[in-house]
Amino acid sequence: MGKLLIVGTVAFDAIETPFGKTDKILGGAATFIGLAASQFDIEMGIISIVGDDLPQEYLDLLSSKKIDLSGVEIVKGGKTFFWSGRYYNDLNSRETLSTELNVLADFNPIVPDNFKEADVVMLGNLHPSIQLSVINQMDKKPKLVVLDTMNYWMDNTLDELKEVIKQVDIITINDEEARQLTHEHSLVKAASAIQEMGPKFVVIKKGENGALLFHKENIFFAPALPLKEVFDPTGAGDTFAGGFVGHLTESENISFNNLKNAVIHGSNLASFSVEKFGTERMLNLDQREIRSRLRQFKDLTQFDIELQK
Amino acid sequence: MGKLLIVGTVAFDAIETPFGKTDKILGGAATFIGLAASQFDIEMGIISIVGDDLPQEYLDLLSSKKIDLSGVEIVKGGKTFFWSGRYYNDLNSRETLSTELNVLADFNPIVPDNFKEADVVMLGNLHPSIQLSVINQMDKKPKLVVLDTMNYWMDNTLDELKEVIKQVDIITINDEEARQLTHEHSLVKAASAIQEMGPKFVVIKKGENGALLFHKENIFFAPALPLKEVFDPTGAGDTFAGGFVGHLTESENISFNNLKNAVIHGSNLASFSVEKFGTERMLNLDQREIRSRLRQFKDLTQFDIELQK
Repeated sequence: MGKLLIVGTVAFDAIETPFGKTDKILGGAATFIGLAASQFDIEMGIISIVGDDLPQEYLDLLSSKKIDLSGVEIVKGGKTFFWSGRYYNDLNSRETLSTELNVLADFNPIVPDNFKEADVVMLGNLHPSIQLSVINQMDKKPKLVVLDTMNYWMDNTLDELKEVIKQVDIITINDEEARQLTHEHSLVKAASAIQEMGPKFVVIKKGENGALLFHKENIFFAPALPLKEVFDPTGAGDTFAGGFVGHLTESENISFNNLKNAVIHGSNLASFSVEKFGTERMLNLDQREIRSRLRQFKDLTQFDIELQK
Repeated sequence: MGKLLIVGTVAFDAIETPFGKTDKILGGAATFIGLAASQFDIEMGIISIVGDDLPQEYLDLLSSKKIDLSGVEIVKGGKTFFWSGRYYNDLNSRETLSTELNVLADFNPIVPDNFKEADVVMLGNLHPSIQLSVINQMDKKPKLVVLDTMNYWMDNTLDELKEVIKQVDIITINDEEARQLTHEHSLVKAASAIQEMGPKFVVIKKGENGALLFHKENIFFAPALPLKEVFDPTGAGDTFAGGFVGHLTESENISFNNLKNAVIHGSNLASFSVEKFGTERMLNLDQREIRSRLRQFKDLTQFDIELQK
């Protein structure tokens, strides 16, 4: 059983979609990553920072999923990071209505002693200097460091971001961000260029158009499961990342073939996440449903062409 | 060995991409469909119309691929259908610079006697009344009728188009067209709605984002092969259709599992087509290359998650 350390936000989200809107609900990258990874038989802890306005029940909920919260700093009198956004009709584009950093503005991550020898470190989307600080606090080099980031850090802190990229084994990034980072339109070329920056493996997320895994000349593709209704895409990318690292931490195997499976596990869990607002669906998910949908992924993608004819 | 009848354009194309531009070269839906289908062990004929400005060498070239041209009318003094277009940087969008119908304006398709009992009929993108006329000339109901169409006919001849859709077994259509035809954004819902209009199987093409096959509750997805360079997308959809019907005509098996394979064969051939201008790559393609790339498709999509855990 491997040990997974996640750094990322635990936040309030307020979401508006064509189907409805929410008040402030539980969100944040570390939340979605952790809930997805909790489907695997692993030990796991989160590093984050929140204000004391975050309801205790949210923290209890994460604890109940066997997520160690000793790395979550609660700032007295502080306000929790808040994001609100509105999705357009096609749910592929969204507008950020408000971002309030609050306590996140002064986040100084502290890796708890019992996670300084974690096998896998998942660096959720955050300022690259925070991600770097976590790497530097590890007692020994983890077996695997996975980075998620976004265009905001490319626009504003590119040099620091490149320093983090140099030190990780796997990066997950969306298609437009991969293009922005490398100035290559072809995702095949972009993935090669990113591998030259450090990571041995590159995962390019394409939202409803699936995800690509690259390693040297090898490419693997997982579609998003076609759904009758996508209700709320918030957290889908983080849920993907959580399923991906959750499987890798559990299996302790980073062969390309097992990374393929990790991409499928990530896609599979993300397909649930979008069915309800926020974390709702992830909190009510059992192994039977997960396995049944993995079978749907097989039916969706597996074919049998005889190549010896 | 099955017999395939294709109706569609044989045309001049003039293409501009970020990588260069062509003079008038051989193009047209029936050309691309026929060249792709010629990779299979089938009997095949084209119904089309051209002017006597079309170089004899183009016709000879199609004949050399064992495509029966007895259904191709050559209009003395007539001019061949001409399309020219320009692709933008991302190659996903294009602008039509010119469309000259010429002899196509008075196209009255005649099915040659030796194709009136074809097993498979492929209705390439054309005016629905032309497609309907071909169906009506068949001596017996073909085992399979496949329809390709586009938004232009939805805008201008929707009632006639719906009459054709009612009579076919399979429709191939792109994602935006599927949405336009059904007023459903979800492709799963759009595919259900189209099945209610007639076709038992629906193939939704998503360009560089692959293709989906739907039949009742079954869904199959084939990605486009990720390429370092897409040179010219012209004809990719028709090449896909040609590989799809070519395989079905050869195998004479329309089970869902075999339709999956047909989608892969179509995607595979389309991945070659985009590597050069127009038909150039399809004219220089051998079985060894095709098989090798089918293996790439397997590596790209096949995974092995044990579901009995």
